[in-house]
Parts: sequence; C-alpha cells; structure tokens
Amino acid sequence: MGEFQLIEWIRQQAGSDDSRTILGIGDDAAVLSVPENQELVISTDTLNTGIHFDERISATDLGYKSLAVSLSDLAAMGSNPRWVLLSISLPEINTAWIEDFIDGFVGLAKTSGVTLVGGDTCAGSLSVTVTAMGLVNPGCALTRGGARPGDLVVVSGTLGDAGKALSDLEMNRLPGESSTRALYHPVPRIALGTSLVGKASSCIDISDGLLADLGHIAKASTCAALVETGLLPTSSGLRKYPQERRWVWQLTGGEDYELCFTIAADDECQLAALEKSLDVKLTVIGQMVEGSGIRCVRPDGELFSVELDGYQHFRN
Amino acid sequence: MGEFQLIEWIRQQAGSDDSRTILGIGDDAAVLSVPENQELVISTDTLNTGIHFDERISATDLGYKSLAVSLSDLAAMGSNPRWVLLSISLPEINTAWIEDFIDGFVGLAKTSGVTLVGGDTCAGSLSVTVTAMGLVNPGCALTRGGARPGDLVVVSGTLGDAGKALSDLEMNRLPGESSTRALYHPVPRIALGTSLVGKASSCIDISDGLLADLGHIAKASTCAALVETGLLPTSSGLRKYPQERRWVWQLTGGEDYELCFTIAADDECQLAALEKSLDVKLTVIGQMVEGSGIRCVRPDGELFSVELDGYQHFRN
Repeated sequence: MGEFQLIEWIRQQAGSDDSRTILGIGDDAAVLSVPENQELVISTDTLNTGIHFDERISATDLGYKSLAVSLSDLAAMGSNPRWVLLSISLPEINTAWIEDFIDGFVGLAKTSGVTLVGGDTCAGSLSVTVTAMGLVNPGCALTRGGARPGDLVVVSGTLGDAGKALSDLEMNRLPGESSTRALYHPVPRIALGTSLVGKASSCIDISDGLLADLGHIAKASTCAALVETGLLPTSSGLRKYPQERRWVWQLTGGEDYELCFTIAADDECQLAALEKSLDVKLTVIGQMVEGSGIRCVRPDGELFSVELDGYQHFRN
Repeated sequence: MGEFQLIEWIRQQAGSDDSRTILGIGDDAAVLSVPENQELVISTDTLNTGIHFDERISATDLGYKSLAVSLSDLAAMGSNPRWVLLSISLPEINTAWIEDFIDGFVGLAKTSGVTLVGGDTCAGSLSVTVTAMGLVNPGCALTRGGARPGDLVVVSGTLGDAGKALSDLEMNRLPGESSTRALYHPVPRIALGTSLVGKASSCIDISDGLLADLGHIAKASTCAALVETGLLPTSSGLRKYPQERRWVWQLTGGEDYELCFTIAADDECQLAALEKSLDVKLTVIGQMVEGSGIRCVRPDGELFSVELDGYQHFRN
C-alpha cells in the first residue's frame, strides 16, 4: 500500500454523511460548518513511542487511546466532540497493524459521534497526533480558572489504576486486567463533561496525575486545594495494596482520564442526580481554600507529602 | 525549563488580543468563535527529523517552515488563515533552540494574522505537527475537484528551486542561496489563494511535486492534464542547467509550495491583473483535457517521460 492508497483506504473507513462536514478527507484541508450559535473547542495531543506507550500496547488499543485522550480534553471543557484530524508517523507500512489501529480509532469515533475529516501520514518513528474539535454554547466552556475557596473538589470514577499499570510495566510486570483496561482503554467522560456546564466552577481531565492537574485548577483559579487521601475513590483491584502506596498512584500516577472538577458546596446535592442519570461514580475528595498549591491530608489529620508536580515531559 | 514553564513561555510569545479567540493557550483546549457567515478550513501537517528535514536546517527556519507549509494548504483552499495549534516533540529542552524555533514560527504567524492558540509539547524524536485553521465564505473553498477539459493550468512563482536544493543536500552538496531560500523559506501564497476564490476552477499547493499534485487535480476532476515543459517557470538560478535535468526538478522535486490552479480559458485575461495587484508571477503551463493522468510535452512536440507519482512517504 502506498501513501495515497493508504489515505484513500482510511477515507473509506471514516465514512461521512453529515451535512456540516462540507469537505472531509482528500483535499488540502477539510471544510467544516460550525453552527451559528456554537463556539469551537479544539485540542491537540501527541503520543510518541517509547514515551507515551511501547510495543506492549496493541494497535487497536493505541488507535482507541489516541482518540480517547483527545476526547477527554474536549469533555473537560464541557464540549460535545464533533470532528477529528489524525496525523500518524510510521516507520513502515504494516497493513495489518494499520487496519487494527484504524479499527480502534474509528470504532471510538463512531460511538462518540465524531467524524474523521483529515490528517497526515508520513514516515518517521511511530507517533500519533490527534486534533479533536467539539462544540459548546457561547460562553459555556468549562475552564480551569473558575474555582473559588469553599468549592468542593470532585472526581469521576476511580483513581490510580492506570498509574498502577504504568508502575507494573516499568518493572516489566504484567498488570492485572482492570489496570490494563484503565491504562489502554480509558473512557472519555463526554456525557459528564457536557452535563457539568452551568454546574461546575472549573474542570480538568486527569492526564498528568491528580495533584498536577488539580494544581492547574488551583493556579488558574488563584486559590489552594485540600485533598483528603482517605476519600480518594479506589477500585476493588487497588484496595488490597497498602494505602500509602496506592495514594501515590492515585495522586501522581497519571493517565486516569477521569474528570476533576469543582462545584459550589451548595450544589453538592446535584452530584447524586448526575451519578444516577449518567451511571458514573462521583466522589468529593476535598475542598478549595484560600492560598496556593495543594495539601493532602491523611485520615489521621496528618499531612501526606508526595512529589507534587506530576508528570512533566521535561524537568528543570 | 520544565514542560509547564515551556508552555507558559510560549504563551507569552504568542500573544493574543483578538476577540474571536475566546480561550487560547493554557487550558485543556482552545475555544474559538467562528464568524457566523464563514466556514472553517482546517489542515494538519507533520514534519519529522530525518524525513522532512535534518540537522542542516536552523531552528528559526524550521519554525518558519513548519507553519508555512500548513498556511500553504489553507492558501490552496482560498481561505484566510486565522488560528494555529503547534505540537512539538523534542529529545531534550535546548532553550536557545526553542527560542529560535518559536521566533521563526511566531514571526510568520504575526505577519500572516494567525494566532497560536494551543498545542502540545512532549519528549520524543524531533517532530513538529501544525494544525492551521482558516476561514472562507460558505461554499467558496477551492478544491481539487472542479477542473474541466479546456481549463488552463497555471502555477505561481517559479518551480524546481527547492527540488534542486533537496537534490544537492542528498549528495551532501551545499545548495546555492536562492535554492536554500526556496527550500527553507517558502512563502505561503495566501493573498493569491483568497484572490482565486470565484476565479479558479480547482487549486492545490505544490508540496509533493507538480506532477503528483496536478495529478490529484486531474483525478479529483476526472480529466487529464497536458503540461508543456517549455513553459515551466524557471528562476535565473536554474536556467543554467540542462533543460531535461531541471525539468525533472520542476516536475517532481516537491516542496515548491507554489499554487497550481486551473481557470477557464476565457478568464486568462484576469491573470495579468492578478499578477500586477499581488506582485506574483503566474504562468500558464498547460491545459486540462479529456482522459486521465498527466502528459508532459517537450517544446519539439515529443512526450517527456519521468516517474509520474511524485513524493510518497510509502510506496507499493
């Protein structure tokens, strides 16, 4: 398969019968019709071999995850995902591998109502860049900057499973099934994100670890956050580990792709209704307070101290 | 400089004082307000080290060129560039290199009226993915698919200089100044692209070589193209080479980033006015005809045969 045939093949898999995609794959650019009363939300993420993943991930899972992490960003903004571009660098054309990758990618695109409208294919070490676009009502996008002292800090799902899997992989151990699923098959919290518009005062997705990401909320909102480690939502698989060990995965592990958001304390009653209607676990894990930075408090009232800056690709 | 400081530093360079950029760099995604009466044109391009460039390009030139090739795609669609996302993978943080790269990138962004609104930075082998967005009146985007038999084939500028530079670099020769400029500092034909709306029947930018790109127009338009090699616009620097040698650079060299478009023969008179108002050379190099594929005819009437499929990252 040559480059031009590859693009044509991907175009056939992508499909597109939607009136707002004026021009999809196959020209110099895509042409899209953004509805008049909507703002465009756009995010781009790169996954590199040897950094974000290695050869232990299947092509299907990589295809799925490449899109999932970008949709997670759109969810954190409270937007409805709509279109996506895929740029992929490959050392060589391995038809079976590409078919599996596109299968994972397009499978999630279809169930998320997202149309693949363009991209790029080129030679290079394995790398995937996904640019995802969503729509939101004007002025309604959730940001990191609206939390106020007194607001409750809430997270969706459970934390630490992906971090546990990463820790296993680093030590060349095979992670358990639920950790592997958390790492390779995160579910972008799209319905939750859109439901939080008008309710959450700030929101972020947990990609770099709770402390780093909640730290972004605190900084952008010019306040501090207090996290109670005893409240961190924990999967049954993680409960068997000593709590100090799992707190580290839960606070700094990264790759959870759950949403962390803040709501006014008066709105706490809305969480139960959201949990029920969306079938998603929501847990209050702390509170925003005056000051700056994040403090973690153990159930015994003592401070729990871990390296606080989360995953960064480059350090000082 | 850590990753978060790097992003903050880039944000400061990018600036943004524009009312349609609701949210720029610094959240999970950018939020943009597309004007009601406009369609969004979006294109993404990846440049990889060892494939699209090597260590002989300066950081400033790489920054410039990464954006220029994406703006060239927007120009080919007849759209006005507006916003851009930059995803960059780096093996390490080299502050001086990054400053130069951003200098080249943001310099072109500012002169092109483009706002840098987001992106991604991560560890990995050097790679740059740029997603550029432009605006066009509804239904007015230029495509590859509208050429008709009888239309004239026109190209902007001169062809082959970048191809000559690539050929020199492959043989470890230092290209001349004008070839180097053509390769490292292509000027996206934005004003020409927007001026061609309503005039050109099809348009593409020449990135993979004239034959490959005109081939895309022919295929999408279900007709054929006849190119007269004697008409290919040639820089003074290239005129000294034997014509058969330079024709190969001009037809297949790639990286010219000129526009190739078609217009109805009756509209030929409009070319002179465009040349004058935009200060850009426009040359009729052939004609669309019934059939499929591209034929090149020498001044003596004989067919000129070269490998016709242009640059592809992967071949059969």
